Amino acid sequence: MKGYETLRPAANITRASHVVLTANDLGASREFYSGVLGMVVTEQTPSALYMRGLEERSHHSLVLKRAPGQGRCERIGLRVLSEDDLDALSEHFTANDIRFDWAQVPHQGRTLHVSDTVGTPLELCASMDEAENLLQRFDLYRSASPQRIDHFQIAAQNVERAMRFYMPLGFRLTEYTAKDGTDEIWGAWLARKGNPHDIVFANGRGPRLHHFAYTVRETHELIHVCDVASALGQAARMERGPGRHGIGNALFVYFRDPDGHRIELFTSHYQAIDVDVEPMRWDLSNTRRTHLWGLPATARWFFEATEFAGVEPAEPEMQADPVTLERFLATQ
Amino acid sequence: MKGYETLRPAANITRASHVVLTANDLGASREFYSGVLGMVVTEQTPSALYMRGLEERSHHSLVLKRAPGQGRCERIGLRVLSEDDLDALSEHFTANDIRFDWAQVPHQGRTLHVSDTVGTPLELCASMDEAENLLQRFDLYRSASPQRIDHFQIAAQNVERAMRFYMPLGFRLTEYTAKDGTDEIWGAWLARKGNPHDIVFANGRGPRLHHFAYTVRETHELIHVCDVASALGQAARMERGPGRHGIGNALFVYFRDPDGHRIELFTSHYQAIDVDVEPMRWDLSNTRRTHLWGLPATARWFFEATEFAGVEPAEPEMQADPVTLERFLATQ
Amino acid sequence: MKGYETLRPAANITRASHVVLTANDLGASREFYSGVLGMVVTEQTPSALYMRGLEERSHHSLVLKRAPGQGRCERIGLRVLSEDDLDALSEHFTANDIRFDWAQVPHQGRTLHVSDTVGTPLELCASMDEAENLLQRFDLYRSASPQRIDHFQIAAQNVERAMRFYMPLGFRLTEYTAKDGTDEIWGAWLARKGNPHDIVFANGRGPRLHHFAYTVRETHELIHVCDVASALGQAARMERGPGRHGIGNALFVYFRDPDGHRIELFTSHYQAIDVDVEPMRWDLSNTRRTHLWGLPATARWFFEATEFAGVEPAEPEMQADPVTLERFLATQ
Amino acid sequence: MKGYETLRPAANITRASHVVLTANDLGASREFYSGVLGMVVTEQTPSALYMRGLEERSHHSLVLKRAPGQGRCERIGLRVLSEDDLDALSEHFTANDIRFDWAQVPHQGRTLHVSDTVGTPLELCASMDEAENLLQRFDLYRSASPQRIDHFQIAAQNVERAMRFYMPLGFRLTEYTAKDGTDEIWGAWLARKGNPHDIVFANGRGPRLHHFAYTVRETHELIHVCDVASALGQAARMERGPGRHGIGNALFVYFRDPDGHRIELFTSHYQAIDVDVEPMRWDLSNTRRTHLWGLPATARWFFEATEFAGVEPAEPEMQADPVTLERFLATQ
Repeated sequence: MKGYETLRPAANITRASHVVLTANDLGASREFYSGVLGMVVTEQTPSALYMRGLEERSHHSLVLKRAPGQGRCERIGLRVLSEDDLDALSEHFTANDIRFDWAQVPHQGRTLHVSDTVGTPLELCASMDEAENLLQRFDLYRSASPQRIDHFQIAAQNVERAMRFYMPLGFRLTEYTAKDGTDEIWGAWLARKGNPHDIVFANGRGPRLHHFAYTVRETHELIHVCDVASALGQAARMERGPGRHGIGNALFVYFRDPDGHRIELFTSHYQAIDVDVEPMRWDLSNTRRTHLWGLPATARWFFEATEFAGVEPAEPEMQADPVTLERFLATQ
Repeated sequence: MKGYETLRPAANITRASHVVLTANDLGASREFYSGVLGMVVTEQTPSALYMRGLEERSHHSLVLKRAPGQGRCERIGLRVLSEDDLDALSEHFTANDIRFDWAQVPHQGRTLHVSDTVGTPLELCASMDEAENLLQRFDLYRSASPQRIDHFQIAAQNVERAMRFYMPLGFRLTEYTAKDGTDEIWGAWLARKGNPHDIVFANGRGPRLHHFAYTVRETHELIHVCDVASALGQAARMERGPGRHGIGNALFVYFRDPDGHRIELFTSHYQAIDVDVEPMRWDLSNTRRTHLWGLPATARWFFEATEFAGVEPAEPEMQADPVTLERFLATQ
Repeated sequence: MKGYETLRPAANITRASHVVLTANDLGASREFYSGVLGMVVTEQTPSALYMRGLEERSHHSLVLKRAPGQGRCERIGLRVLSEDDLDALSEHFTANDIRFDWAQVPHQGRTLHVSDTVGTPLELCASMDEAENLLQRFDLYRSASPQRIDHFQIAAQNVERAMRFYMPLGFRLTEYTAKDGTDEIWGAWLARKGNPHDIVFANGRGPRLHHFAYTVRETHELIHVCDVASALGQAARMERGPGRHGIGNALFVYFRDPDGHRIELFTSHYQAIDVDVEPMRWDLSNTRRTHLWGLPATARWFFEATEFAGVEPAEPEMQADPVTLERFLATQ
Repeated sequence: MKGYETLRPAANITRASHVVLTANDLGASREFYSGVLGMVVTEQTPSALYMRGLEERSHHSLVLKRAPGQGRCERIGLRVLSEDDLDALSEHFTANDIRFDWAQVPHQGRTLHVSDTVGTPLELCASMDEAENLLQRFDLYRSASPQRIDHFQIAAQNVERAMRFYMPLGFRLTEYTAKDGTDEIWGAWLARKGNPHDIVFANGRGPRLHHFAYTVRETHELIHVCDVASALGQAARMERGPGRHGIGNALFVYFRDPDGHRIELFTSHYQAIDVDVEPMRWDLSNTRRTHLWGLPATARWFFEATEFAGVEPAEPEMQADPVTLERFLATQ
């Protein structure tokens, strides 16, 4: 299988940029993301909390908007290289009959709103307000000291349909899950920025946001954040790990925030730039893809996810047989 | 509760020293302990495999003897400071009507055999053949690079009865588990060498060897050994972890060897020397004692252990109620 | 100062790819790079040794060719995205009156040879033979376990002249050193792959190869490789570090190989993708740019470098005053 | 050479306990020890600052007393097992015509004051006020997160004379430096608590306190404290390291506090309990004893130390020849 559709896309989407979530209590969110995980607060208003990792120079990679009720994801943010790329995108969408809008978003340059082929609401921009450079403010490093946003994982009712939106835009398939003995894709790791993924689609009730992920520097920080969570009485927010994924090679820990949104902290990605390397295939039945060692995931981790605001999820169009499924689940 | 019975014991037992196990296939054992975990082989004969950690100067801390059938533990080894201490021990046992024998054991000085008050077969010696100093042979460090043996955990049919053997010999209680609202001890962490434990007793069908433990230097080595086990197709030998125990503060991973013997690799113990510090109590219902974060242990970890050769285990004299028990078990 | 000349270069150069060095004794080179540092040998012939990092899928990132005499660098290798990019490059060079040649290089696709504006001999290719994926063969990780080649540093007689070759090809300036109170550039960090640099130019007798650099995963691996070098009697090959550069934020250790070539092992780079972030300026007099803490570099580190085969170096066109220089040098 | 004089000393001295220093500005001291290094403040009064490591349960291991002028060390503190041991010590000193006094010291039990045979002022006690257990308050871990005091190093005008005080009290020689080809001891590593040292004597103008040392958990914390010091503008307080000592195997970093007192942070000690292991000898000319790799120490590190209050140091009775000395010194 080839990992890409085009090496010369119409526009240069550069990377996963940010995620916009709703939260019932911004104080509780701040206590979790900053106090427990060690993220940086750029700005807090009565209605929104803007956060980022320690090396991020852009104003925000995580936005929490105060809203009552079940936590929702408003949008997934992608970054393009320049304003010209936004214009090129608008032409591409127009040419392909894809509806889009221009939006004004605080602290961001001109922003384009669009939904992908499975209904995931996206926003794309070329610039943000610049935040203070804290990379070498090592005195501020605490807990996991998350460095930067890395990728999103979306539960999709049909993974191949999702790919049809991203592949013409220059996304590249680096690894994938397929049903044994077939080419039916159940999971697709799609990348722009030179590591295994900016956005991942996995078969499931969707579209829903399964998780967003931040890099941490080293192994010990993934253990330390567990210890800190325990010391602060927040150990129950850990949902999975520490463990190592076969796909992508991430050493990971997953947490659920006070509104139920799932965040992955991980380290150990590899560089994925050369196009002469074939995408790596993992059979659906291979448990090593989800964990090289340790206990399997719980059913919560497999089946729960954040719905997108105003988007009704659909059932997955492919169903796992119970025997296969059982191999991936711990029964906690 | 006071942590000690005497500060001036009759003899100076200094530390956990070694463990003698049976194995069906010494090649498989060597592949596991050396190839997967990174321990050092001091010597291999047709009938025995002698191993140690990277900083250990004594000939062996782990002895595997070739024997067919179910894996058994022959003896737990303790070290005394000098030959005089062996004589003092023999006088103490005679005065207390405790049977003992003198044994000739290869690579060890004069060795005393005795069983404790719950039937655990022990051996004590003051010296061993000296092995090469590999502490600074960093080129030989591999996988977890285990440094030294640290402690044993014994499942005992009656923990307080076990303590009656060790406390008059100068062992000190550093931490313990007790049934909520009572002083009924379910777990006792007993120490001689200045950290939380040389030998631990925990309520259960006993006596049986629950595990023996080696120190590793740092967090990343506990993750690396999991990765190495996976790369060598041995991930199924991991039984629990990585996780952090509340009691003793160990960051741990547990493995089962090819004969089913359980070994803990851990880091992060603290110093326990001052006798003005009270033993730390943990209520039986407090799950934090066994894990500060992460998934609970599996039933295998809780209930399976190695029998001692020629010693029929007895049922525990105290029974956990099912509700309490359930809080500690994952259902894998 | 703007960090880039064009966001739409004629060809897509993707990353630092490989370096070709001469060596007197391939056995000694192998013992150093594999035995001491932990790199992977892809292939050895009587006349050449091909090596790579643990995650690299391409056949080689380091080539040592057997040749007597003083160690030389034959070429610096860069990777382009596709064969089309090689053609685009050849058109660009033709249009700009830059001489180039096509070469046949073992294990590489079609290869273009060219020299930059300060005389650095380069080669560019779009593909290589594929090597075994060892990323998850954690049992093979040893010593520093270098992961992949990251960048080159070239001593240049005139840094701004060097930039004139790279900036029109889409390289981006991420950080730079300038003489206090002026815009005279003494050091330029030029990047294509989304971190701070693929190639660095620093004022000095040039062109000469100051060092090439491999990433390591974590801090402890940088200490471990020092310990391993010491255990193998190779501690004298360490030339600088461990320390942290202000520029680029790398935690580094520098070694000299048996032929005097300098290799940097480092960790902790940051992501540099967004073009709305200005290049970071460091004044020449600011010692923090070269080390945030610890002893300064020795004169050897500052002044010694590998000459390019057949290229006579020229004296730097800008000279440091002795007072400034002294602040950067330990007198070992 | 035998490592001990007696295995049954008159009294049980258990460990290095604390150090009492003078400081000009307690605020500056607190900013350094707590803000830069990450130590814990137990209590601050107008005239004294009491600090400890994160796992320490005793009230203080570091006492800074406000006093103008050159920083001095008032006393080195040792701990004994029980009050009975204090009485046994007083009998031992009386029998050996060694002057001592009883003192009242805040937060300590009955305290005995005595000077050793080279004039080092000591104090010994069996108990201290108990401090809060912060071992598992991982949310408070910052910078190096020092865990506990480990040892002192004293410059002594005659090392063998110093040993004559400690060896009859059960101290054990674990490693030592001797002049090549002789048994003339230039450095003595003396231990009670089961690792290589509680107190070290090294030939030099003395008695003076060369440094006191705290353990840290892992390698990355030694690098992190350097980074934090840099971020806080305190990098100049680093005096040596990171490096690894051959003797004792410590991975170390040395700092000077605002009054010039030297503190070592280190990790990687080994267990030293068995008396059948001979002390390790290092020839004076062997540079590996002081650093396995990296640059040598500066003259400041070698020759500067804290004087004891009211104790005039004497010149060392053995003099190093300039050639030997030069091998150990960087010329910063």
